Order: sequence, then C-alpha cells, then structure tokens
Amino acid sequence: MNKIEHIGIAVKNIEASNELFSKLFGQPHYKIEDVEGEGVKTSFFNVGTNKIELLEATTDDSPIAKFIEKKGEGIHHIAFDVDDIRAEIKRLTNEGFIVLNEIPKRGADNKLVAFLHPKSSNGVLIELCQEIK
Amino acid sequence: MNKIEHIGIAVKNIEASNELFSKLFGQPHYKIEDVEGEGVKTSFFNVGTNKIELLEATTDDSPIAKFIEKKGEGIHHIAFDVDDIRAEIKRLTNEGFIVLNEIPKRGADNKLVAFLHPKSSNGVLIELCQEIK
Repeated sequence: MNKIEHIGIAVKNIEASNELFSKLFGQPHYKIEDVEGEGVKTSFFNVGTNKIELLEATTDDSPIAKFIEKKGEGIHHIAFDVDDIRAEIKRLTNEGFIVLNEIPKRGADNKLVAFLHPKSSNGVLIELCQEIK
Repeated sequence: MNKIEHIGIAVKNIEASNELFSKLFGQPHYKIEDVEGEGVKTSFFNVGTNKIELLEATTDDSPIAKFIEKKGEGIHHIAFDVDDIRAEIKRLTNEGFIVLNEIPKRGADNKLVAFLHPKSSNGVLIELCQEIK
C-alpha cells in the first residue's frame, strides 16, 4: 500500500459541508461526482498528496444513508492506494480479511475499488483503490 | 495543511491489533509509545508518507475507553500536519471551528497537537499536529 489515497466522510448536506471543509482546508473542493451505482454524490478536496472525499446519500437505501442513520455524520472509510488491486485482494483474502468485492468495481475519481468488511479489520471500513490508467 | 499526518484507530487490544494491521500493511509497526496524560498506549505504522496510529486505553476514564464504550472499535480521529499550529488554531477559531486546545499540547510521536470538536466539523474529530523540531 502506497499511501492513504483518501478518507471518506459521510455528510447530510454536501453543499453545506463543502463550505465547511473549504474553510478547514483554506481551499475549495476540486471536483463533484455522482456515483449512481452507490447512490452517492461525492466531492473531493486535496490535502497535500492525500484527499478528503465527502459523501452524501442520493437514495434512501444508499450505504451512506444507512451509515448516517446508525452512526450520524462522520468518518466513513479509509482508502489506501495500491498498485495492483487484484494482487492485494488475493493477498488480503489469504491473510484472513473479508474482501467484499472479489472482483474490483469502478468507483469515483477514476478508480478500481474493493472494500474490506469492517468486522475483519477492527471496525474500520477499508477501501483499496487503484488508479485506472 | 500539508497532508494527512495519521489516522487514529481505537482498539481494545493493541497487541492483537498490531498483528492484524501488520498483515494489512505487510509490515510491522515501527513504534510503541505510552501517552500517560491521555491514558493511552499507541503504536504507529507507516503507509507511504502517512501513518496509522492504533490507540488502546490504559485507564477507564481515557477518551479511548469512552469512545469504544459508545461506538465500538474503529476510526477515532484524523490528524493533519501543519507548519504553524498556533497560526492554524487562530485561523480556524476565526472561521468558527471549536478548537479544544487554545494552547497546543504535547502529543505522541514528538508532536505539538490541538483538537477540533467534532460538532463543529461534521462529526469528525480533527487533530492538528506540528512536528517539534
């Protein structure tokens, strides 16, 4: 794993949160993107070589809607940048982690992604992501 | 803010979690450190230019003990690296964030640190940290 690619934060109102996080970082988000398959609208901020991804639910059965209902707004997942996501899926499965996507799927921000179930990683939802070249 | 300095993860048993996260990252932690003032034992992993900090409570009234009691194990805070923590505390206070430490305090890993209250930042506990030179 090369670095923290981004941290995903579940928010209720992405416009209000874009304003808040612009103040926090001293610069605006650089991108808004809908990920229809996941029922989320996302926005991205750069923090040096890392990113922050805000996530707002666009459907009632979106994972983000369920997360906020259960836990409230806050940190949703950590994404790690990897060079070869298929090799990492295989390695981590062999190490006993529960990989939710045996085959990586297309995520936001031009990435192939796969998630590890939080129950196999101390309550932390982990995303692996590989840039699509 | 220069980058994500680290992500803090609250765990019940730091020895078991050190083993788990060593498997995740494919390398062991590089440091264990007690922060007595906070009632925590910490361990650190490198992930490229970022770090993961595991936190285990060492006292019943430690913030980490309370966090786990309320929310279970999982992501506890995000720490951002800053060049001038006093200037950032002033800037963010002026922007309306609730800074919990008007004067930065000494944290783990040779840092001056200050926290922002999650209620002013979408449920996210944010740490500012500046390397002590």
